[in-house]
Amino acid sequence: MAEQNRVVLHGMWASPFAKRVELALKIKGIPFEYVEEDIQNKSPELVKLNPVYKKVPVLVHNGRPICESFVIMEYIDEVWKNNGPPLLPQDPYRRSQIRFWADFVQKQVFEGLFLSLTTEGEAQEKAIKEVKEKLKVLEEQGLKSLLSEAEGSPFVNGDELGFLDIVTLTVLGMYEIHEEFSGMKLVEEEKIPIMYSWLNRLKEHPVAKEAGAPKEKVLALLQFIRQKALRSTAA
Amino acid sequence: MAEQNRVVLHGMWASPFAKRVELALKIKGIPFEYVEEDIQNKSPELVKLNPVYKKVPVLVHNGRPICESFVIMEYIDEVWKNNGPPLLPQDPYRRSQIRFWADFVQKQVFEGLFLSLTTEGEAQEKAIKEVKEKLKVLEEQGLKSLLSEAEGSPFVNGDELGFLDIVTLTVLGMYEIHEEFSGMKLVEEEKIPIMYSWLNRLKEHPVAKEAGAPKEKVLALLQFIRQKALRSTAA
Repeated sequence: MAEQNRVVLHGMWASPFAKRVELALKIKGIPFEYVEEDIQNKSPELVKLNPVYKKVPVLVHNGRPICESFVIMEYIDEVWKNNGPPLLPQDPYRRSQIRFWADFVQKQVFEGLFLSLTTEGEAQEKAIKEVKEKLKVLEEQGLKSLLSEAEGSPFVNGDELGFLDIVTLTVLGMYEIHEEFSGMKLVEEEKIPIMYSWLNRLKEHPVAKEAGAPKEKVLALLQFIRQKALRSTAA
Repeated sequence: MAEQNRVVLHGMWASPFAKRVELALKIKGIPFEYVEEDIQNKSPELVKLNPVYKKVPVLVHNGRPICESFVIMEYIDEVWKNNGPPLLPQDPYRRSQIRFWADFVQKQVFEGLFLSLTTEGEAQEKAIKEVKEKLKVLEEQGLKSLLSEAEGSPFVNGDELGFLDIVTLTVLGMYEIHEEFSGMKLVEEEKIPIMYSWLNRLKEHPVAKEAGAPKEKVLALLQFIRQKALRSTAA
């Protein structure tokens, strides 16, 4: 196949970063080839495509690599302007708010969630409590107005998933599995009702459902990450 | 003054994040009011404008706040398309490369530099060594092709400062003061010649010179940050 217009995504099934790019391509209706990478044993091709971080996702378009999930999502939105729905709105102020909250979900919620996965006892309880506080901030200061401006549409981006919908889906789409794994509630309907129903709409989107992984496989991976982290802390 | 079209930047003289926004506005020729914030004693207005992080910079445009330096720079480029030079190029692939490397300068170089400021002895030497390795990566894998594609222009963005030029200027523009402060070389002409001459062109840009702070004031601040960090480590 000619390199011209060829689109290849190097991903890994459990990577929320790679999943974002996969969802963005699917929502936009862009045909692509998928290469599953083994992050325990990185392929020479991945190292060559992303020599700086040696990580997924890498999107290869016209033979040229693009790395980092947010950078790739902006690229997709700019290159395929006329394919499917835009991932970001037109209005510059609203774009700025979407970018701000997507960054918040990544830096504050994802990193807190990861910390809860790799800690025990009080430290874990503290991490979960902090994630819940961040979700409250997201609901009160971000989501409430972003969704009301979407005027009854199911998603922040309107009738289709957009930038913030996709990023949140890849961080919190499996919140019930996280709750089962930690034995602690993360998303309580009575405390963050807007978030709760938004997350449930996100999860039910056909593209999200199709891209999801089996629960047992996710639980096994969470267990693997946790054991590895706790062993290294104990050592 | 009517809120309509009013542009106010809340900054702090030593913040590289606020400085980015100031430089971007000046390069684009956008008139703005400047409010200096005291980060030891945050104003109620700052807390109200940026309730999530309570940090500078905040850009207020038409009465609405925008936070986070990269988000603000994208906003400026989108709103004032026809004022002065664009901060990002037109081509989506080149835009992706600029965003990738700006993020690298922030996450890898800035954070390493900050670590070197707050550590002593071997830990400090290690931090500086790592910053130098990152600069080599930036030169070899980023700057070399970005500048050669700029075809003899002094800056990555061409004849005027753009997104990556500005971000790098706010992180490394004072590298000589850092070298004097730590007593260790950061930017060696023989090791990273492209970076060395680019940084020296950046520093000499009239807008950069005008926005710079007096050396003694910067040294005193570095000393303050260092003492505070080392005291809290010792405590």
